[in-house]
Amino acid sequence: MTESSAVLIGKKPIMNYVLACITFFHGGAKEVSIKARGRSISRAIDVAEVVRHRFLPDVKIKSIGIGTDQFEAQEEGSSSTNVSTIEITLIR
Amino acid sequence: MTESSAVLIGKKPIMNYVLACITFFHGGAKEVSIKARGRSISRAIDVAEVVRHRFLPDVKIKSIGIGTDQFEAQEEGSSSTNVSTIEITLIR
Repeated sequence: MTESSAVLIGKKPIMNYVLACITFFHGGAKEVSIKARGRSISRAIDVAEVVRHRFLPDVKIKSIGIGTDQFEAQEEGSSSTNVSTIEITLIR
Repeated sequence: MTESSAVLIGKKPIMNYVLACITFFHGGAKEVSIKARGRSISRAIDVAEVVRHRFLPDVKIKSIGIGTDQFEAQEEGSSSTNVSTIEITLIR
């Protein structure tokens, strides 16, 4: 058994991540997780929607989870920062 | 029976929407839906996380749904635009 495949969303064009998801599914993956933080979160949803609606209609959303990552402050005295996260798991 | 209360996320500071959610719950709502489109989506998750972790620890996430809204083009010849959406339903 392999772990579920993960696509981490950054600043590249949406189609790069869409292709990464499709490649995982074509390689036999049953599940692909799309993960993003902060401002990339809306892009993660774009990727999931394009994969499902335009390329792989047999792919469904298995689950969507949200959370918070905490960053410790680099300098003394400043408080730590929180950033929201999302994980969308697609299943075929 | 009332419909579930909805908070639509726009460009205002996060705390405005957090307060709106808390006000609904304090007014007796059992469920509050947080809805957002496009770039406001990450803000919707921030709001849900702050409500749950900082103010109302008995509030849980009931469901998270994603979707696509299609806008018809205003001018002839140009194609329609898609925008991703999210709806986070909190339950007490």
